[in-house]
Order: sequence, then C-alpha cells, then structure tokens
Amino acid sequence: MRDDRSAGRVTLAQVASQAGVSLSTVSKVLNGRPDVSAPTRGKVEELLEEHGYRRSAPTAPEAPLIEIVFHELESAWAMELIRGVQNVAKETGVSVVLTETGTRHSPGADWVEGALRRRPLGVVLVFSTLPEDLKKKLWSRAIPFVIIDPAGDPEPDVPSVGSANWAGGLAATRHLTELGHRRIAVITGPRDMLCSLARLDGFRSAMGMAQIAVDPELVRYGDFHVESGHAHAKELLKRPDRPTAIFAGSDLQALGVLEAARVLGLRIPEDLSVVGYDDIPPARWSSPALTTVHQPLVEMAEEAARMLLRLRKSGRPGPAARTARGDGAGADRAAQPSRPDQADTRIELGTRLVVRDSTGRP
Amino acid sequence: MRDDRSAGRVTLAQVASQAGVSLSTVSKVLNGRPDVSAPTRGKVEELLEEHGYRRSAPTAPEAPLIEIVFHELESAWAMELIRGVQNVAKETGVSVVLTETGTRHSPGADWVEGALRRRPLGVVLVFSTLPEDLKKKLWSRAIPFVIIDPAGDPEPDVPSVGSANWAGGLAATRHLTELGHRRIAVITGPRDMLCSLARLDGFRSAMGMAQIAVDPELVRYGDFHVESGHAHAKELLKRPDRPTAIFAGSDLQALGVLEAARVLGLRIPEDLSVVGYDDIPPARWSSPALTTVHQPLVEMAEEAARMLLRLRKSGRPGPAARTARGDGAGADRAAQPSRPDQADTRIELGTRLVVRDSTGRP
Repeated sequence: MRDDRSAGRVTLAQVASQAGVSLSTVSKVLNGRPDVSAPTRGKVEELLEEHGYRRSAPTAPEAPLIEIVFHELESAWAMELIRGVQNVAKETGVSVVLTETGTRHSPGADWVEGALRRRPLGVVLVFSTLPEDLKKKLWSRAIPFVIIDPAGDPEPDVPSVGSANWAGGLAATRHLTELGHRRIAVITGPRDMLCSLARLDGFRSAMGMAQIAVDPELVRYGDFHVESGHAHAKELLKRPDRPTAIFAGSDLQALGVLEAARVLGLRIPEDLSVVGYDDIPPARWSSPALTTVHQPLVEMAEEAARMLLRLRKSGRPGPAARTARGDGAGADRAAQPSRPDQADTRIELGTRLVVRDSTGRP
Repeated sequence: MRDDRSAGRVTLAQVASQAGVSLSTVSKVLNGRPDVSAPTRGKVEELLEEHGYRRSAPTAPEAPLIEIVFHELESAWAMELIRGVQNVAKETGVSVVLTETGTRHSPGADWVEGALRRRPLGVVLVFSTLPEDLKKKLWSRAIPFVIIDPAGDPEPDVPSVGSANWAGGLAATRHLTELGHRRIAVITGPRDMLCSLARLDGFRSAMGMAQIAVDPELVRYGDFHVESGHAHAKELLKRPDRPTAIFAGSDLQALGVLEAARVLGLRIPEDLSVVGYDDIPPARWSSPALTTVHQPLVEMAEEAARMLLRLRKSGRPGPAARTARGDGAGADRAAQPSRPDQADTRIELGTRLVVRDSTGRP
C-alpha cells in the first residue's frame, strides 16, 4: 500500500468492493505482485482503468532505477543507446536496468509485472509502438516512459525521441550528386518502417534537386543488416549499367556493399562511392572508413533519460487528465497528471553527414 | 533490519555497542544507506570486519536483480558480455542492472553503497582485480560475485570466468605457419595485462614448434584498439623485410592492420595475411571477413551468471568460513559461508580458430 495512501484510498476501496476482492488484492495488482490470479488481476485492471485511477508519483526509492527495454540487444544501436541512458544515470546516481524482450514491437506481460514491482523512476523503451494496455498500466502507476524511436514512427500520445531521417537521406544523396555522381543506387530498410521511407524520400528529393531521374531498378529495400547490403550490392554491381555510387541506408548495409565491391575487384572510392547511415563505431573501423550520416544515438538516449526525469519531477507521466473521482476527499488528494508539455512529447535530434574515405568523384 | 534478524542480532547489537552507535545505525551501514557519516560508517565497517560478521543470504527480493559492472562500456566486449548475462537472467525471471564505473581496475565506493541498497542476487564484475575492502563488503552482506576476466588475470580467492589465451595465441600462429608463412609479426596488447602476455607466449611457442626464430623487431605491444593496430602495421609494412602475416592480438587491432594494408596498396590475403582475436561481430563484417580466435564472450558471461546463482543457492558467497562469534545463541544461528567449491572458483572456456577470408598462403 505504502504511497497509495495519500492518493485515493477511497477509490481503491471502491475498486476492491466493485471487484469483490480485498483492498490488499487491489494493492497487489497495482504493485505487479505475482500472487494474484489472472482473472482477478484482469477484473481489477479493468476497474482501475474504468475509474481512470492514477497513483501519485511515489517517493523516490532508496536505490533508484531507470529501465531501458530493447526488442533485441544484437542491434548495432543497442550499445550506443545504453551508453546514453547510462551517462544520465551516472550523473544522477541512478542505476540502469536492462531488459531484452525478444519481440519486435512491444515488451511482454512478464516485463510489465516485473517493472511494477521494481518501481523505476521511469522507462526508456526502444520500440516504435506500444500496446494500449501497457501504456495504461504504466500511466496508472505513475511510471513515466519515453520511446526512443530511431525508426521514426512516433505515437502522438507518448513522449518520444527520434532523429531527422528525411534530412539524413537528403544530405547523403546531395553529397553524392555534388561529387558528380548521376547513376546512384539506394538500399533503404524494410518497407514497413517509416525511417526507411523517410530516408528514401530524402534520396528522391536530392535526386530531384539535381535533376536526375530515379531509375526504379536502382531502388532496393533491405533489412538494415550486413547480408542484405551485400546481396543487393552484388546484383547492382553486376549490372552492365552499374551505379557509380550507393547510398546504403545503414552502416551495416554499407559494410555489406564494401565486401561485394571487394569481391568484384572494385576499388572504393575510385570505382564506387558508398554512404552509410547511423555512424556506429564499425563505420570508423571499416576499410576504407565510411562516409555516413551521423545519427546521434548516444544523445538521443540521453535526451530520453532526461525527459523521463523531467516528467517524473513534474508528476505528469501520462497524457490526458483522467483522475479517479470516487467519493470526494480521497479523490481530491489524488494526483492529477495531465498531458505532458507539448515541448516534451517529441524531440527530434538533427543528423549530419560525416565525410570519410568511402566517397569520391565518379 | 529485516533479514538480519535471524543472522546474528546479538552480534549486531555488540557491534553497535562497541561503536557507540544505535543498532539502527549499524543496520543502515549494512544496507548501504546514505544517511550515516563517513567516520561512523568507517568505524562500523571496521568492527563488522573484525568480528567477521556475515549476513545470511537474504530471501530473494520481489524484483530480483543481477548486476553487471564494467569499467567502460565502449569496450567491444561489453555488448557480448551483457547479452550473456541477459540470457541467463531472462531464463530465470531476473533483471539486469548495468553500471559503468569509468575507472580501469575497480568499481568505486558509490557503486558499492548503491549495490548494498539494491541487494542484488549477485554481481558480475568485468575487472581483473578487486580491492580487498570491496570484497569484504560484499562477502559480509552475503552478496555473491564473480569476475569475468577476459584479461586472464584471476584472483585466487574470487570465483572467475576466463578463456584460454595462451592456446588462442598458439592456434592463431600455427594457422599461419601451417599456411607456409615464416616472416610473421605479432601485435599483442598492453605489457601489463596477462592476456597480452599469454597470447604472445602462445605465438612464441607456435613459432618454436615450426622452428622459426622470432624477430624481436616484429614483436609489438599495442593497446587492443584500432589505432594501435594501424600505427604498428604501418611501421611493420613499410619495412623492406616486411612480414607476410600479422597476428593482430585483437579484432580491433586487426581492423587497423587491414586499413594500413589498404592505404599501402597491399591486398588481403594475397600480399598479407591477418589474424584477429575475440571474434566480435565487426570481425564478420570486415572486408575481407577476419580469420580470428573466437573468445566465447557470451558463454563466459552466461557461465558467470550461472555461477552466481549457484553460489547464492548454496549460501556460500564468500571464501573463508569466518563467522561472527559474539555471545553464543545469535552466532550459532548465523550463516556459515565457506570457501566455494574448488570447481566453482575458476572456469576457463576454450578458444577456437575461425578461418575466414583474411588469411592465405604467402
């Protein structure tokens, strides 16, 4: 019960009575305790939502935590994002809890219940979309959360941090047209990720600005990994009308392009210019070092962590101001979180071109 | 106080009386609470140590944690080790707390106090050596810890997981001598890390087995990073009697060697064979893909996490069986942790050569 006492005991009692369970059972559900049956938990969650119950921000725990949740740690992004959250955590004496969920689009129920028990200061989620019931559970417990969204597909009601994908695609391609390339291929990411489409549209606009028609044969969709860059580049570079430059959509795809060129005996950048995207450490280590678009992953994660701490401080972790109105006194003492400041709901950090050794005149 | 009750209340009372503080102050020190003055904390820690006080393993917390502590997250190893700990944590419904301390050889006092408050199931430390007072603090609180020690410099009284560095250096070099190379250079790591010396000794033994004298001019000490591989390779490859093969000591150093070769117009592997060490993901992504020694970092971290959970289960997180003997009854009920099983104190996992495209006949 602890910190629920000041924030609507009456409402909780009401929920308990409507659900036909004890107050302590309602408390267990709120705290993510495992010893509640699934049907009971479901009924209580439903009533909490119906009443728009929202706990006031709990007092800071003795050993404060920030959580970061990934769908896969193997992503080349993961380490950079962890470092960003860790930087802010270290400044503020907070520890970082890491979870990998293994599913692409949202963390599972196990994670949610665990997080309710751990009561973190806040949660950074590296996902594009979140299921409604997850948002509601976190909001009702006053646990703020922010999405880091390198995929560029923000949800309007969730604070998020992204970066300028369209502008990045534009800068990469303009660099190539300004060097004098006209036969330019692009390998972007999956068709169902907005960041792929934004980078591709940036490519198209830069080509248009240089008055170069885009050859649809030279537009490819990969999956952002090395192998897909390699496979597409092999096809592109075997064409009689092969491109003199490839905008590879990600650094990993660019590394695959370098290997395809090496096997075919093409020199970089004399025979082929290659531009990556992301500027992860392997882009500096490749041979030659990659010209790429710097996506400020560390800074994005730092922003996300700072946004969390601000949201928590302001006591407004969630969106709409729906607060339980039970029977007077209790509800009046309940916290009234409201939609976060507009300025807090979306931050988009700039991208910039980093010219290294993989690009040159055709 | 909680779980101290069964494990030596009398002893704690005695410590409090000797220190001239309240029992609650002693309890605060035990739990890493910040509201105790430094001199008081020091005096209490000293008495706890003097009496050999050791808490019995606390009952599992509701939201169990394993901690992993690094000196720097930028290490190419970090992500692999995090993944290993995370794999075991996920299986057992535990969360992973990550700390970067920024100092090379041990985690700071801040971290220790935080960990005492968080009460993790155990701690994985990616360090070669630990200060005595840190070990004592963790032992006295019954928090088991294991060192992951890719540097190969284990402490005898601390359970640790490493890998076979000498055998790795031997395998890398034998691969080169068997291909027919006789003029072989080596760039190992820093002189003060045992793993550097072990890999170098493996190199020397393989050269001896092939009856090739080691040219001291071709033996270099780097720092395991890309730039040092690049700098040493540039010097080595500009020599009139340049080597036909380089054992680069780490994958990052190998990437630096590849770049030096490219700039000098040397083809890999036709003009120069290169072997790395570690087998981190960039070794697969390089162009050409690196022949390297696979260090099972993920498995090492998995072993470390499993070892922690075993130590915790056995209730023997520390070494020698020094238990408080205050005034009878209380001490009898205290836990009596003993030296972990010999089998548990050091696990060394095998390394193996992975042949890819950066090596060939001279």
